[in-house]
Amino acid sequence: MLSSRAVNDLFLRTCRGEATERRPVWIMRQAGRYLPEYRAIRQKVDFLTLCKTPELAAEVTIQPVDILGVDAAILFADILLPLEAMGAELQFVKGDGPSFPHPVRTREDVARLRNPEVDETLGYVFAALRLVRRELDGRVPVLGFGGTPWTLAAYLVEGGGSKHFEHLLAWSYGDPEGLALLLDRVAGTSIAYLKGQIAAGAQALQLFDTWGGLLDLERWRAVALPPLRRIVDALKGEVPLIYYVNGGSHLLPALAELPVDVLSVDWRQPLSTVRRIVGPRVLQGNLDPAALLAPIPEIERRTADLLREGSGGPHVVNLGHGILPMVPVENAKAFVEAVKRLSLNP
Amino acid sequence: MLSSRAVNDLFLRTCRGEATERRPVWIMRQAGRYLPEYRAIRQKVDFLTLCKTPELAAEVTIQPVDILGVDAAILFADILLPLEAMGAELQFVKGDGPSFPHPVRTREDVARLRNPEVDETLGYVFAALRLVRRELDGRVPVLGFGGTPWTLAAYLVEGGGSKHFEHLLAWSYGDPEGLALLLDRVAGTSIAYLKGQIAAGAQALQLFDTWGGLLDLERWRAVALPPLRRIVDALKGEVPLIYYVNGGSHLLPALAELPVDVLSVDWRQPLSTVRRIVGPRVLQGNLDPAALLAPIPEIERRTADLLREGSGGPHVVNLGHGILPMVPVENAKAFVEAVKRLSLNP
Repeated sequence: MLSSRAVNDLFLRTCRGEATERRPVWIMRQAGRYLPEYRAIRQKVDFLTLCKTPELAAEVTIQPVDILGVDAAILFADILLPLEAMGAELQFVKGDGPSFPHPVRTREDVARLRNPEVDETLGYVFAALRLVRRELDGRVPVLGFGGTPWTLAAYLVEGGGSKHFEHLLAWSYGDPEGLALLLDRVAGTSIAYLKGQIAAGAQALQLFDTWGGLLDLERWRAVALPPLRRIVDALKGEVPLIYYVNGGSHLLPALAELPVDVLSVDWRQPLSTVRRIVGPRVLQGNLDPAALLAPIPEIERRTADLLREGSGGPHVVNLGHGILPMVPVENAKAFVEAVKRLSLNP
Repeated sequence: MLSSRAVNDLFLRTCRGEATERRPVWIMRQAGRYLPEYRAIRQKVDFLTLCKTPELAAEVTIQPVDILGVDAAILFADILLPLEAMGAELQFVKGDGPSFPHPVRTREDVARLRNPEVDETLGYVFAALRLVRRELDGRVPVLGFGGTPWTLAAYLVEGGGSKHFEHLLAWSYGDPEGLALLLDRVAGTSIAYLKGQIAAGAQALQLFDTWGGLLDLERWRAVALPPLRRIVDALKGEVPLIYYVNGGSHLLPALAELPVDVLSVDWRQPLSTVRRIVGPRVLQGNLDPAALLAPIPEIERRTADLLREGSGGPHVVNLGHGILPMVPVENAKAFVEAVKRLSLNP
């Protein structure tokens, strides 16, 4: 049995919209390259090996809890892993990011994808989650995560990252029903994968829509939303669900209606503006990740501004995008500590 | 003397807010890689040589006027050329885009930049403009252009394109006054360069703020706007000024107040929404560039939608960003022809 004093559930209570004694804080990509302890492990194994070795994945997942004192851990993994499980060869080339040497660009390509047995193909993720839960022993909750179908398809169709995602967008205009087949297949695998994460101990889930902002509002609703809704509807009520979008200021009117527990937004608009558009929702975010490159007094000043902006409702404090590799660890710590100090309710 | 029948000034009249018999149309990056005629010239010379050979730059500038029938030509050049004139070594590596091997990251680096004599260092641009004016002989007006100081500095500080522009943003948070020195130097050279373009025959100017959307509204106002305002104020009243921003939906409240003649926006928000925020302004845009990858009937349908969206005021029809290299020429033609056919005022 855990003693109740050892349990920090600020994050989960805030996700559920409850008032808390102070605001919880964690950092997207908090297990990552800015940490010397992470880089030390990456010197020994490559990125995919790290993802697929549960002991190591658990170790880097827990590092920022010890080092920064964040209020939640997020599993170390990559959003593209379920696509590999579907049969798409996935490579990470040093410096170039992810690559799919055989992009999926036709209905025939879609038909060749597998509906994987996730326990077999992604069991290493679930094993890492179980290890993290056991080792954290209730200190902080653990998030699982996945990409949205649109964002996963972006990489799979393009064959990796891209400036303009021309192949993806050409398909979306030229044969939207064909692309919908792919998005639906990705949604199906994602549901099994995310349910597997819950079964393995994930206490909340975040869906990353990194490329949702490529679409205008009407097309986001028509193309990206249906497969996302399938996932949201399948997971609703199990654990708190967070939806994150980058560059999605123009999508807020649609996001207002999305039945997730928490909306996580980038830094481009103040949270008070976001709240005016999306109404009484739990928000997560949204310090400019580059603000952590500032001198510490400036970080503290901007954190205070962020807390004021977010004070109109439940607020999980975070950055507006992943932490940048150049950020000094002391600066990330200063951010976490400022949130803890400045968001105490008297 | 030109006969009045040969002169197409739809574009200039619309920029000045006048009602016209139909809407003008041109395409960002219309002189570019999607055109076989452009690629044929690029097989013979590299990118910088093309920019610096007035006869060739004039030839590719005029190609889309002949091939697509657009209502304006835009000079073929690169926004980074004035930085090279300031003493920054500039390279274009095939496939990798622009690169500055010696990035400018300190006040000392700024102090080493030159205030160039633009007629000496950028005279090839002015020569190309004079050739274009002579060869077009009034058929359509010719636009000149430049980057905004923030966007030019983004490349110069980072050393090229970048995913996160960490060096630029670190400087903006760590020593904003130092970065302001750079932005001001870039603004000074830009004013001389753009005035030189006007003297050489540019009949309108577009300022490209490709990376303005990296900044939130408050920081855009504090960091990017002052050097931009210096340029706008220096050029105001000379020729129509167009300001273009990519990914700037969240900046519209600030853009409403920018004293340029035309606001050019990306495809992420419908023009009716943009007009609600910026008020009675001349707008330019904003078909999704990827829509030109659709089958032609779909292009025509979306062009009709765009014309309806833009009908609340003066409207220069364009894409929301540069034309994509994969676009078939027939598709670009179909867009231009649809605008001409469907936007006639009865």
